[in-house]
Amino acid sequence: MQLEQLGQQAQQASYVLSQLGTQQKNAALQIIADQIIAQQSLILKANAIDIAAGEKAGLAPSLLDRLLLTGERLEAIAADVRMVTQLEDPVGQEFEGKVLENGLRLSKRRIPVGVLGVIYEARPNVTIDIAALALKTGNAAILRGGKETLNSNLVLVKVIQEALNKAGLPETAIQYIESPDRAYVTELLKLDQYVDMIIPRGGAGLHRLCKEQATIPVITGGIGICHVFVDSSAKLDKAVDIIENAKVQRPSVCNALDTILLHRDVAETLLPLLAKRLTASSVNLKADPESFEILQQLGYPLLEAAKENDFDMEWMGLTLGVKIVDDLAPAIAHIRAHSTQHSDSILTEDWSRANRFISEVNSAAVYVNASTRFTDGSQFGLGAEVAVSTQKLHARGPMGLKELTTYKWIGLGDYLIRE
Amino acid sequence: MQLEQLGQQAQQASYVLSQLGTQQKNAALQIIADQIIAQQSLILKANAIDIAAGEKAGLAPSLLDRLLLTGERLEAIAADVRMVTQLEDPVGQEFEGKVLENGLRLSKRRIPVGVLGVIYEARPNVTIDIAALALKTGNAAILRGGKETLNSNLVLVKVIQEALNKAGLPETAIQYIESPDRAYVTELLKLDQYVDMIIPRGGAGLHRLCKEQATIPVITGGIGICHVFVDSSAKLDKAVDIIENAKVQRPSVCNALDTILLHRDVAETLLPLLAKRLTASSVNLKADPESFEILQQLGYPLLEAAKENDFDMEWMGLTLGVKIVDDLAPAIAHIRAHSTQHSDSILTEDWSRANRFISEVNSAAVYVNASTRFTDGSQFGLGAEVAVSTQKLHARGPMGLKELTTYKWIGLGDYLIRE
Repeated sequence: MQLEQLGQQAQQASYVLSQLGTQQKNAALQIIADQIIAQQSLILKANAIDIAAGEKAGLAPSLLDRLLLTGERLEAIAADVRMVTQLEDPVGQEFEGKVLENGLRLSKRRIPVGVLGVIYEARPNVTIDIAALALKTGNAAILRGGKETLNSNLVLVKVIQEALNKAGLPETAIQYIESPDRAYVTELLKLDQYVDMIIPRGGAGLHRLCKEQATIPVITGGIGICHVFVDSSAKLDKAVDIIENAKVQRPSVCNALDTILLHRDVAETLLPLLAKRLTASSVNLKADPESFEILQQLGYPLLEAAKENDFDMEWMGLTLGVKIVDDLAPAIAHIRAHSTQHSDSILTEDWSRANRFISEVNSAAVYVNASTRFTDGSQFGLGAEVAVSTQKLHARGPMGLKELTTYKWIGLGDYLIRE
Repeated sequence: MQLEQLGQQAQQASYVLSQLGTQQKNAALQIIADQIIAQQSLILKANAIDIAAGEKAGLAPSLLDRLLLTGERLEAIAADVRMVTQLEDPVGQEFEGKVLENGLRLSKRRIPVGVLGVIYEARPNVTIDIAALALKTGNAAILRGGKETLNSNLVLVKVIQEALNKAGLPETAIQYIESPDRAYVTELLKLDQYVDMIIPRGGAGLHRLCKEQATIPVITGGIGICHVFVDSSAKLDKAVDIIENAKVQRPSVCNALDTILLHRDVAETLLPLLAKRLTASSVNLKADPESFEILQQLGYPLLEAAKENDFDMEWMGLTLGVKIVDDLAPAIAHIRAHSTQHSDSILTEDWSRANRFISEVNSAAVYVNASTRFTDGSQFGLGAEVAVSTQKLHARGPMGLKELTTYKWIGLGDYLIRE
């Protein structure tokens, strides 16, 4: 396989996609949704091969579950594609129009980014999800999913390509890197002549690889070491609700809570309430010396003394770091030092402290009296989520369709020269 | 020198800068402007050392001129700093506010990027220029200028730091990498724990180095292979004016014209008019076989047959590629293949062709009946220019103050949990 050829084809396809109207793109998406249902047995057959191989390889049940497709899940995936047709198409919007003194009429027009390179974990639904979002925004995409889902992905991409063909669009709009050779990932990251944006969806290792190897702009994110600071003025019973929600509701996702910082003045009152609630959910606590002592006296069953790097962990499970701080300032300092700038929250009744927390904590999402779990494209009303960016450029936090576009300046003159 | 220490200091300074009001930042800029004038003799003395060394090293007169500071130039630089105080401060603006169904009040707030890493050529004015723009937007910066201006830059940074000190701001807001060792550039590009954005200002080699080595998002740009397509319907006398303006007015800058594409139907009429005008400005023409024949018959004095890669050259001087094309489609195809997506223009009276050119050419700036020379922050009314981005993410075309900022999402709730 020649990756360069995939790149060329994707770029050519992107020229076609960039000129489509919204209805044409939606029509193609409808056909994709229909075909996912129509080709169900083919897709499930391929998926069964992946599942069997995964079981043989001893994959963890949670990984196998991510990998698994069922008729019901395909219905849901098709429904998601139909939902994308309902979203507003950002492409073509003109904004910031103005006429300069010399008569040049200037505006910005929103256009697709061009070609996306997407590298993701072993979740076949991402293949459809990303393809739908790319097509809706007029972008071509080169996909590379986890090797454990290769059979599923190849069939899904085939279904997409046949649907594109039926819709009269170039099949090369969505392409897949079939070879399991990791060298192709590195090659993709350097294909800057054709690829405009790299979206990694996976763990910290993948993001690091992309940052280090890519010559193409990368959207890093999706890694959340998230904090809740409980101020001395917070309503403590409600604080327990929020901590439980942020930690327990869905512990394996990036906006789940990792560390709680407790104001010293309320630690002794709060910890018993919290211990009771978290015991019920079997949350492991990694406690700093001070909170460890209190929790030990309370007889908390799943307690460990926090090690040095436990406050730099994204737990992805039912573990929670606990630290007692003197005041807001050390809480902010801790967050600055340990947060991945994903989602951090303060619980407080004190207006000045809330204000200061909002101003001084520069994470992608900063909350007052709310769970960190809200940082999510659907929760934020974006309709769909491409990724959650934790970097500073281009986009921050949940990225929707608009974040898959860029703009060009358009200048109209009457044979204008620069004086 | 420990670059890591510079990074830590810059990050700490950025926390302070991010909390400043506009008046405080403007006050610091005023002191910088005053000090540039007050410390004039010190600055000129250091600059004289750089100039002497440059002369001894046999630098080209144009490079020496870029390097040179004079009393008059320092006045202009100080005036530019004062102008930055007049620009609107984008930091702190809140936008896209909304209340979600569950009661979460969500908005975006514009904040500084954080720490900028700026690598630039031997132009001491850039040191002041970038420092002023960084400070106005609440960003700290680590600077690294061309080694030929080291003495000038060190004094200028000292002047800035003393001014920051007078203004009660951390001196470490603006720091300079003093060592001429290029290893520090590579190290800076990987200092992603502290630096949020790399801005290279220089040639294609520097941009390539940054793209390849940086683990920090890079703003690539400033390389312009710019085109003018003269359609068969264009007013030819006006086309000559625009080509002359785009090529001759300031040939050493990135928005200067590099290649003209001439519609076959008008090539024979246009080339004599053009030849006459461009002879007067001593423009070297690199012509494709067809236009070469016509220009040779016209006896154009500075004519060469275009070589393969002459259409991939940013000339930065009085040279111009000439190519005859059959129609709009091959003109667009040529631009897609050879443009750096900086600035491209169509000259036409045909509405449909203008429309198609605007839609299908995806350069940062696309013009109808206007010179490519307009792509420039001051021309576009941005007040100042940080760089001209030719990449797709974060910003495209001239970047002003807003493009040195990012945003965070702020979510305010009443102890809200996610259902």
